[in-house]
Amino acid sequence: MRAARYTGPQDVETADVVVADPAPGEVQLAVAYTGICGTDLHIYHGDMDARVQRPAVIGHECSATVAAIGSGVEGWSVGDSVTVLPVRSCGSCAACQAGFGHVCPQLVFLGIDAAGAMQNRWNVPAQLLVRVPNEVNLRHAALVEPTAVAVHDVRRAGLRPGQHVVVVGGGPVGTLISVVARAAGADVSLVEVDHERRALASKLGFRAIDPTSSDVTAEIFELTSSRGADVAFEVSGSAGGVATAVDVLGVRGKLVMVAIHTQPREVNLHRFFWRELEMVGARLYERRDFEEAVALIASGVVPAEELISAVVPLEAAGEAFASLAGGGVMKVLVDCTESREGNGDV
Amino acid sequence: MRAARYTGPQDVETADVVVADPAPGEVQLAVAYTGICGTDLHIYHGDMDARVQRPAVIGHECSATVAAIGSGVEGWSVGDSVTVLPVRSCGSCAACQAGFGHVCPQLVFLGIDAAGAMQNRWNVPAQLLVRVPNEVNLRHAALVEPTAVAVHDVRRAGLRPGQHVVVVGGGPVGTLISVVARAAGADVSLVEVDHERRALASKLGFRAIDPTSSDVTAEIFELTSSRGADVAFEVSGSAGGVATAVDVLGVRGKLVMVAIHTQPREVNLHRFFWRELEMVGARLYERRDFEEAVALIASGVVPAEELISAVVPLEAAGEAFASLAGGGVMKVLVDCTESREGNGDV
Repeated sequence: MRAARYTGPQDVETADVVVADPAPGEVQLAVAYTGICGTDLHIYHGDMDARVQRPAVIGHECSATVAAIGSGVEGWSVGDSVTVLPVRSCGSCAACQAGFGHVCPQLVFLGIDAAGAMQNRWNVPAQLLVRVPNEVNLRHAALVEPTAVAVHDVRRAGLRPGQHVVVVGGGPVGTLISVVARAAGADVSLVEVDHERRALASKLGFRAIDPTSSDVTAEIFELTSSRGADVAFEVSGSAGGVATAVDVLGVRGKLVMVAIHTQPREVNLHRFFWRELEMVGARLYERRDFEEAVALIASGVVPAEELISAVVPLEAAGEAFASLAGGGVMKVLVDCTESREGNGDV
Repeated sequence: MRAARYTGPQDVETADVVVADPAPGEVQLAVAYTGICGTDLHIYHGDMDARVQRPAVIGHECSATVAAIGSGVEGWSVGDSVTVLPVRSCGSCAACQAGFGHVCPQLVFLGIDAAGAMQNRWNVPAQLLVRVPNEVNLRHAALVEPTAVAVHDVRRAGLRPGQHVVVVGGGPVGTLISVVARAAGADVSLVEVDHERRALASKLGFRAIDPTSSDVTAEIFELTSSRGADVAFEVSGSAGGVATAVDVLGVRGKLVMVAIHTQPREVNLHRFFWRELEMVGARLYERRDFEEAVALIASGVVPAEELISAVVPLEAAGEAFASLAGGGVMKVLVDCTESREGNGDV
């Protein structure tokens, strides 16, 4: 079978690999689509070479069907549509014992620390499967993982209907947060520098603000009759995004830190004191977030078609990574469906 | 009567002032003791001249007895022991309507924006009085206000019994937070650079850590079997204090921002993301915090005697302010009791 593998900085090749039978407790998936995530791009650029053992089959946003079932696995049938919760926690540390296995310090992330989804067939532990109704389009189902991120972020916000939300950063995750927050009853303003992403946000019905030409804070306070935003999501990863996300908040507002800031950022702590603001970090997801994401995809709340910029064949994965340096693109899916002429077990 | 007044940078004078009868809705207090707070020192150094109208009777940490009662005031008798909730909110803004009057943007703070307690007699709106049992020593009752700050800070932490708490900064507020957190069932480590303050913390039964000679983070992780602290209070106001308060926290730990940071600080936002940390700002107090503080003082949970470094006469208030530049001192009280030879209405 074929797999897209990261072999070193700026190099993803599609190669023949041998697929084993599923081990006891595993299922073998026929992968349908795998989304390319910002983390995959970090790997592609060599930023995570200390963690990724090469050659590495990457990818962790997938849809698939069950192709074979290992011994001891119950509850699944060949042909079932699924997605994969791509994290294995240790189960015994303080975080796991407290019910926060998704931030376990020993977390193994499939597609980073172990083989991922960007291949025809993928053996995964059965307990990581998440059921997708068979009538859901498998291209859409590949968006369950990033949607689960958004669901988790909104859950961390403790959002209530009628609240004003500012999302700073309008890439795939920022846009999905906007969608999930609106579904939870929020009035959403999305702040984004990229013209194409703002255009998509507007098309999806969000108030899209260009921070390079608007005074975002003044605009939000005007929109909210001087109350300020109730919740801000920092999804931009930029120093300016952090400042904006703090400044737009009203008394007791909450900032959800979604983006990965690889360097310390200056934060207006006096504002946190003065307005009794809150900040919560939000990382990954829990199983319930995946289940809610499946429901949001299945019900059509998530505008999946609008979020998929392109679908590329597995053989062209390398070119897809190379082309993703430019802005404006939302989600690119890699079609991992086994080709009809292959035998699938090379 | 006599009042200590801030007249300009590094100048507090004690002078004769005229006292009016209490207006309708007011009571006239015979002030007993007024504590000198860090905010008072900021005023003394001229840092708040844009806000403070000179000459200004400052002071907002007081104990007193009711001396006269204005028309329309019910529920109070001459001789009742009281302290004062020194904040007036507008009652109509979004913060007030949401029940957060203590962070009302139009907040009037007695002792900063209006006359304070450092005088023999003080007329205050009756609704700002907080009852103190008459058997409580009035020197101790002067500590209700800073204790209410600590109660509010601990409330914002959502502290649960058995949690490990790190308090960064061992001045009066940091020490009171330690006391209140311990009373709530926490195991408290206090981080403080000053030798005398650490000695007091140890005497009061707290684990006192010197950050100049210890690896605080390593020590806390060792103490907590690698879990890290559940809650950290940043009370130092320093850049290093912020870093320590973030670093000691375990997964889903909470940082309570108590100190006033007058400049933006670098914050490890990646850590907030990675461990799903939280930060909450904590400012002032609500009435329920005052009521709980009175109970903690009355029951002897707060070691009031140990926290009072000195009591100085009102006539020496200026010298007291001048001497407070040095470290190691905890709470200095100004004795505002009317002298027997004065007529109280000069």
